[in-house]
Amino acid sequence: MKKVKHVKIEKGMKVNDLVREMNEAGVMGGGKIGKAVDIIEEMIKDSTVFLGVAGALVPGGMREIIMDMLDHVDVFVCTGATLTHDLIEALGNNHYQGSERVDDKELNKKGIDRMYDSFMKNEVYQDLEKFFDENFSELKNEENIKDFLWKLGSLVKEKSILRKCYEKKIPIFCPGIADSGIGLMIWGKIVNNEECKVKAFDDLKDIMDIAMVSKKNGVIYLGGGVPKNYIQQALQFGKEASYGVQITMDRPEPGGSSGAELREGISWGKMKEKAKFVDVICDVTIALPLIFGSLKDRL
Amino acid sequence: MKKVKHVKIEKGMKVNDLVREMNEAGVMGGGKIGKAVDIIEEMIKDSTVFLGVAGALVPGGMREIIMDMLDHVDVFVCTGATLTHDLIEALGNNHYQGSERVDDKELNKKGIDRMYDSFMKNEVYQDLEKFFDENFSELKNEENIKDFLWKLGSLVKEKSILRKCYEKKIPIFCPGIADSGIGLMIWGKIVNNEECKVKAFDDLKDIMDIAMVSKKNGVIYLGGGVPKNYIQQALQFGKEASYGVQITMDRPEPGGSSGAELREGISWGKMKEKAKFVDVICDVTIALPLIFGSLKDRL
Amino acid sequence: MKKVKHVKIEKGMKVNDLVREMNEAGVMGGGKIGKAVDIIEEMIKDSTVFLGVAGALVPGGMREIIMDMLDHVDVFVCTGATLTHDLIEALGNNHYQGSERVDDKELNKKGIDRMYDSFMKNEVYQDLEKFFDENFSELKNEENIKDFLWKLGSLVKEKSILRKCYEKKIPIFCPGIADSGIGLMIWGKIVNNEECKVKAFDDLKDIMDIAMVSKKNGVIYLGGGVPKNYIQQALQFGKEASYGVQITMDRPEPGGSSGAELREGISWGKMKEKAKFVDVICDVTIALPLIFGSLKDRL
Amino acid sequence: MKKVKHVKIEKGMKVNDLVREMNEAGVMGGGKIGKAVDIIEEMIKDSTVFLGVAGALVPGGMREIIMDMLDHVDVFVCTGATLTHDLIEALGNNHYQGSERVDDKELNKKGIDRMYDSFMKNEVYQDLEKFFDENFSELKNEENIKDFLWKLGSLVKEKSILRKCYEKKIPIFCPGIADSGIGLMIWGKIVNNEECKVKAFDDLKDIMDIAMVSKKNGVIYLGGGVPKNYIQQALQFGKEASYGVQITMDRPEPGGSSGAELREGISWGKMKEKAKFVDVICDVTIALPLIFGSLKDRL
Repeated sequence: MKKVKHVKIEKGMKVNDLVREMNEAGVMGGGKIGKAVDIIEEMIKDSTVFLGVAGALVPGGMREIIMDMLDHVDVFVCTGATLTHDLIEALGNNHYQGSERVDDKELNKKGIDRMYDSFMKNEVYQDLEKFFDENFSELKNEENIKDFLWKLGSLVKEKSILRKCYEKKIPIFCPGIADSGIGLMIWGKIVNNEECKVKAFDDLKDIMDIAMVSKKNGVIYLGGGVPKNYIQQALQFGKEASYGVQITMDRPEPGGSSGAELREGISWGKMKEKAKFVDVICDVTIALPLIFGSLKDRL
Repeated sequence: MKKVKHVKIEKGMKVNDLVREMNEAGVMGGGKIGKAVDIIEEMIKDSTVFLGVAGALVPGGMREIIMDMLDHVDVFVCTGATLTHDLIEALGNNHYQGSERVDDKELNKKGIDRMYDSFMKNEVYQDLEKFFDENFSELKNEENIKDFLWKLGSLVKEKSILRKCYEKKIPIFCPGIADSGIGLMIWGKIVNNEECKVKAFDDLKDIMDIAMVSKKNGVIYLGGGVPKNYIQQALQFGKEASYGVQITMDRPEPGGSSGAELREGISWGKMKEKAKFVDVICDVTIALPLIFGSLKDRL
Repeated sequence: MKKVKHVKIEKGMKVNDLVREMNEAGVMGGGKIGKAVDIIEEMIKDSTVFLGVAGALVPGGMREIIMDMLDHVDVFVCTGATLTHDLIEALGNNHYQGSERVDDKELNKKGIDRMYDSFMKNEVYQDLEKFFDENFSELKNEENIKDFLWKLGSLVKEKSILRKCYEKKIPIFCPGIADSGIGLMIWGKIVNNEECKVKAFDDLKDIMDIAMVSKKNGVIYLGGGVPKNYIQQALQFGKEASYGVQITMDRPEPGGSSGAELREGISWGKMKEKAKFVDVICDVTIALPLIFGSLKDRL
Repeated sequence: MKKVKHVKIEKGMKVNDLVREMNEAGVMGGGKIGKAVDIIEEMIKDSTVFLGVAGALVPGGMREIIMDMLDHVDVFVCTGATLTHDLIEALGNNHYQGSERVDDKELNKKGIDRMYDSFMKNEVYQDLEKFFDENFSELKNEENIKDFLWKLGSLVKEKSILRKCYEKKIPIFCPGIADSGIGLMIWGKIVNNEECKVKAFDDLKDIMDIAMVSKKNGVIYLGGGVPKNYIQQALQFGKEASYGVQITMDRPEPGGSSGAELREGISWGKMKEKAKFVDVICDVTIALPLIFGSLKDRL
């Protein structure tokens, strides 16, 4: 048995050295952070990396890190909200440092939408609408969600998650796209008798093909939801994951997919029996800077 | 101020009487259960009820209660998994009482898929495939997800959530349908050069229309995810909710939609300033039988 | 494998019948509620029952149920706060139905102390002081905490947890007694040059003796903290528990005793390898009425 | 309103620079980490610092950081377990990197005690016993817990939390001391007809005096339990805290003290209306290295 070596802090310590200390301690949440970095380091070198993103990570200040991560990722799966928040910022709007201790009625009067303690001006929808007015003719004939999103990425000129995926040809999968501000914009067209040809099931083939032909698969889940589950089902019919890291605050006991432990995937054939994986129970906005801050030194 | 009247248990007590006691105590989780029943009772009589369901509720033994609830619900929004689990049971298969303390490798060898402590035989996919082989010709020409699901409901002859929604003309919305066993079945057709015309954005108009023309809206969220968020965005552009109950174990602090407190919706214009609403922090498989067990007596 | 039989709600259903339905479903939180009742039913008949209580259960409306449970309990271990809240109510004061959405500054101005959404008037301390002024002479010469608490119970004339334990000769252990309103009252005496002879370690012998001489031990933990841990350490050196039920919302991953799964006790020799036990992840103010409501019918 | 500036990771980044980035983002968990460091930095310079420690932090690899923190702390309040774990390591034993996915029956056979994924050999109790055999005569006549613990610290020759508190004259309060391995050792003496004079209530005066005469108070809570509550009650009768940081995974909704938000203390007069405080919802073994790693550069 390896001893728990207590984390020792030095003045001017680098993030990677701190994470190495946590890895030497090797237990509880801190130990799992350490393991997560080791696993992702190996995963990136050795496998096709599927990144699943759910939750308000752009309003939570994680947009730059996600863009950086895309340099090491092969498939990006996310919620419609993440892409909407990304597009909102690409169009020159922002999220703001607010508070969860606030009178929501007052915010509503001021036209501010709250995501926990991150604020957004409701007027961002005007820029979104303008963007879709100008660009819908280019989007309407796409026939699957992945192609629709790459086209969208090609139309966004500013540095963004959408643009980067387009430029680097990283497929974006977003089965729940209708459930988002982007969905609302398309709805605005549909009620004005425009047609949008994007089909619901067609890019399943694309994600399945990737999961089947890759030599090895690795998964990183920031939050759960549809992105995690969509990758998991691709693994079920494609190759089982050889590497896995998930960061979530959801609990396993109520039985939902978001809080399910990665090891559960072994029963389904989504995770290899001998896969290297770890569940980090932590707020992504805490764990991710720490993990990627360490990883950056190693890559 | 009203005193906390301590919950008093009587021999042979009815569920509704127990919940009334919890409501008289009026504090903490027990008090919120009490409030939830009062709110749903009023919501059902007075508003268009949107029910959002996420998580493994069918594997968790809640299928009968959900079917019962559909007698009082106007709009049903769920994950693809819920419909898949429902269809699996309709086709004569079952979920089984397992354990979370188990060797997932052993389960995998035995062909058993685990959802926390609920087990499913992997062979259920054979009946699913057979069903879709027999019925795909009827499904392939549907053009929006809601219509696709009603058609699916018409093809399921057995008592089920799908069948009941079809019979009672309760619209089912499921934006993430590709992310499910049903999605996998359609993928199986697509790889065999079949076409499926279901479009991703088209039923947005349907849910929006309902949320806009109803006199009052009420929401019940069992879990979060896409179902909650899809209803929330319909409320944002439709009428704000006058009533709301959510049951979840997710935390608000990481900022995601699933764990967000209902009051946050006030800032967005998704919830009325004077709406009656309550957040119940509880496993749905505990809270829902208690709440519906009480409600049944009152309806 | 046993099928998940879906919970079926009937009009006018009794609590015990609902819990039996949840037990037949047998999975996730609802299934664990069902198992908890079965285990406690057997535990009560077959073992020396240690009940550990932490958290604000008296402010949470659980005082009557705890008093009822004492008819079936052999050893009571709790926090000082629980006994203080019990004494406050015994002296004619109350807790009130408040709200967690409140301006704490305003409460402070009004002299109201908040425990989540349960309120208490700060003036209750006056009655506490009066009680200890009148009774300290009887308490000061006690030499261990257990005897001190029985003496206290003898001095409280009203129906209460303290009184009931005294009358039924149920030992009360409360190692952290100094950390409570009762502690503050004794401090008030000490600063006035009174002596209080109660010793910190002396009742360890009493709880150890019970845990060692009993034929079989059973444990019920409502919350974690010192009460759970104090019972656990008695089991470590006494007889391992044959039955165990814990209800908590704390997580196991950070490693603390409060959130630790009961099975962890097997490694320590605190729980028998073949013990019957279950962890219920739930707010006690929801789970306990349900569990005891069912149990009452069976006893 | 201040914009959410997205966290930007640089190669070779220092921990303090990462935390400053998180503070600039300023929202959700990451933002709260940033605020926590700012608050502790100011707290240390400007107030009497009360540090409360609960949970398995020594088995979790945090012993060195706690010892470092003691250079900036005026009052230390903890569970008996923390002091026991510290003493065990001082006597030359260790905690080991284990796993939570383990057969507890096998561990029991091997004489290994589990705390989540941190292991301890059961034989450590032999060294503890030997230590108390050799030193009990020096300890037995102490009359309050604080003096008992300083005496204990004087008898431990090795670098340790206990030794450091003794050397730096930092009072240690531990009302629940009987609930610990140290308690078990004293019990071993009592059953052998030794007397231990330590009294339960006597050091209340000491902590109260400090909380009353200090110019300003600040609190740091690593976990909740008795340590947090004991400091909170000292503040209630002493001076309200001007600064506060708590790190916990416990939830506020069930109403217990451990999960209670710091702002609740304002109602009680335990926290100043204008105090600077933040609740960090995180595993301490993740948050503390990050926070102290940043703080170390600033002090």
